[in-house]
Amino acid sequence: MAGMHTTFAPLQNDTFLRACRRQATDYTPLWLMRQAGRYLPEYKATRAKAGSFMGLATHVEYATEVTLQPLERFPLDAAILFSDILTVPDAMGLGLSFAEGEGPRFAQVVRDEAAVARLAVPDMDTLRYVFDAVTSIRRALNGRVPLIGFSGSPWTLACYMVEGKGSDDYRLVKSLMYARPDLMHRILAVNADAVAAYLNAQIDAGAQAVMVFDSWGGVLADGCFQDFSLAYTKRVLAQLKRTGVDGQDVPRIVFTKGGGIWLPDMKDLDCEVLGLDWTAHLGKARALVGGKPGGPGKALQGNIDPNVLFAPPEQVAAQARAVLDSFGTPHTDRSTTGPTHIFNLGHGISQFTPPEHVAALVETVHQYSRQQRARG
Amino acid sequence: MAGMHTTFAPLQNDTFLRACRRQATDYTPLWLMRQAGRYLPEYKATRAKAGSFMGLATHVEYATEVTLQPLERFPLDAAILFSDILTVPDAMGLGLSFAEGEGPRFAQVVRDEAAVARLAVPDMDTLRYVFDAVTSIRRALNGRVPLIGFSGSPWTLACYMVEGKGSDDYRLVKSLMYARPDLMHRILAVNADAVAAYLNAQIDAGAQAVMVFDSWGGVLADGCFQDFSLAYTKRVLAQLKRTGVDGQDVPRIVFTKGGGIWLPDMKDLDCEVLGLDWTAHLGKARALVGGKPGGPGKALQGNIDPNVLFAPPEQVAAQARAVLDSFGTPHTDRSTTGPTHIFNLGHGISQFTPPEHVAALVETVHQYSRQQRARG
Repeated sequence: MAGMHTTFAPLQNDTFLRACRRQATDYTPLWLMRQAGRYLPEYKATRAKAGSFMGLATHVEYATEVTLQPLERFPLDAAILFSDILTVPDAMGLGLSFAEGEGPRFAQVVRDEAAVARLAVPDMDTLRYVFDAVTSIRRALNGRVPLIGFSGSPWTLACYMVEGKGSDDYRLVKSLMYARPDLMHRILAVNADAVAAYLNAQIDAGAQAVMVFDSWGGVLADGCFQDFSLAYTKRVLAQLKRTGVDGQDVPRIVFTKGGGIWLPDMKDLDCEVLGLDWTAHLGKARALVGGKPGGPGKALQGNIDPNVLFAPPEQVAAQARAVLDSFGTPHTDRSTTGPTHIFNLGHGISQFTPPEHVAALVETVHQYSRQQRARG
Repeated sequence: MAGMHTTFAPLQNDTFLRACRRQATDYTPLWLMRQAGRYLPEYKATRAKAGSFMGLATHVEYATEVTLQPLERFPLDAAILFSDILTVPDAMGLGLSFAEGEGPRFAQVVRDEAAVARLAVPDMDTLRYVFDAVTSIRRALNGRVPLIGFSGSPWTLACYMVEGKGSDDYRLVKSLMYARPDLMHRILAVNADAVAAYLNAQIDAGAQAVMVFDSWGGVLADGCFQDFSLAYTKRVLAQLKRTGVDGQDVPRIVFTKGGGIWLPDMKDLDCEVLGLDWTAHLGKARALVGGKPGGPGKALQGNIDPNVLFAPPEQVAAQARAVLDSFGTPHTDRSTTGPTHIFNLGHGISQFTPPEHVAALVETVHQYSRQQRARG
């Protein structure tokens, strides 16, 4: 595997990884979902050179360049691989493309018994461009902050594989699920094994944490969420490597958009961090899954509404403080583990976001979270 | 007011109203959100005669005809006024239209101080077509089942008034909310008073229950939901008439799509029924807000995923039984009140739904809920 025996520079800022492990930190670390993206003019410039989104994602130098761009502007505490959640079904032969001004689209869809029968875990060599990007980004980071690898969840991949593109109502994928649960379980089993192999290869290539994006888990009915999304996220987690190329543990983050209502079901997931969107109250979530000092529990990641970033910087700062206050002062005892918070958006940053508002957010989170700890 | 002194035929099937009041019923009543709609060929025929959606909604005979159509096909336990949630901002002068194949659109949008200052509670006379439809439908029902009136919630109306149409990300309305909360509160206060006047006029015209559709409450962040949606739903509820034209109490239903996570906040709303979408577990919701026999509590309405209706009738029946089981056997003691359930979808029925699948749903709910009670 690429990067298997590579030695990387020692980590200078481990705040994010410490918070993932529920260890005390001097301030609340933050990164932003989709932090390398269209709201940055420098991203748009690289994107123009690459010609297309997939041109960007499959080109190791471009992928490295755009991953590092937000770190040049803002003192973020983690980098995340620049890629797409749909690379795995693309490697299964479904033919991913991005039409200009539209979302992703698959040339082949999976809607019947024959198409399901053809599905298999892809040869990870077809995804080498991703693992090469991980190694390249990790080298370029040179120990500044940790690198997060990621994948879409089995259910989220299935949504796109059945629908063929984004959907308002998930009619096709849910029709298949309700009419032929056997076929849906088969798709999800293949997806789970593929996602596990994919994340393990990212870990071997140098990823220091991995995140499963269950972007569409929240559209499922109660009961179906547990059977068709959560069960297969569990199947992924059970197969993941626990140790990265440096011999360090690799925290696993699970984010279900719209999943706040199922937090009690996610309490016992075999992962270190749960991501939350803005509908959840971090203090209530902490009480439910954050655990006590010295006891088991999960770190929480999130959850400011990305639309806050359209308000003037003073309001951005006020809302960021409110999110930090809703979690409350994190655990500060360095001799043991306890409840911790990783600041993030509740969903990806909008392409229309003014970058200077992001600067206000980052500064506020770092400053105010130090004050929180000083007040105790 | 239209219908103020009209006498209507006595009610033959009061199962829905009894369940709203948490009174025991022989079976679980059901109706379907958007039950008069495009999935019915007879609706499409009337719609073609009317020329446009608003042509249908503003024409008393057509509105009456389509409201009754689903009752001719299925033994539903309630009728709901055929209208749109956006009639109130239309009456404020914003110019509602429906482009073919698209959603609603307003000619005027409310995005700045001047536009907000111009807003006022509209003269209810401009909405007389709605109240006339209520009276006409009530007469045509001739006591078969009760008639539900409805309105969009203040927040849901504000979303459309600011965005000008549907939205994926609610960027404009949330930008205004975060940047200028004072303006947003002013819009919502006007909306709340307008919605209250609108629902009261529907009650005077003959509506036997009223429902507030907070269709977009679920897109708000925790904290914002309470301040910008729930607070104004409360303002509506506080102003509503409690007695209809027959001297009967008028149950009030509040439905927040995506609001399951905030059920603890809605527990003390001054209304009789809470609607839930499919992400909620009815048994857990019952434990939280359903109350005990003889004690206070709310009836629950919902919550099957409308996409279930694309599966074959056997699967539709199995999923309907699962929803009834998730609520559990309702309260059966006729000498007191207790937890009750009104079966519904978790959202409006899809235009692509096969009507024969709806028949299977209705039959299963009626049969199986009688069996539930017999088993105890």
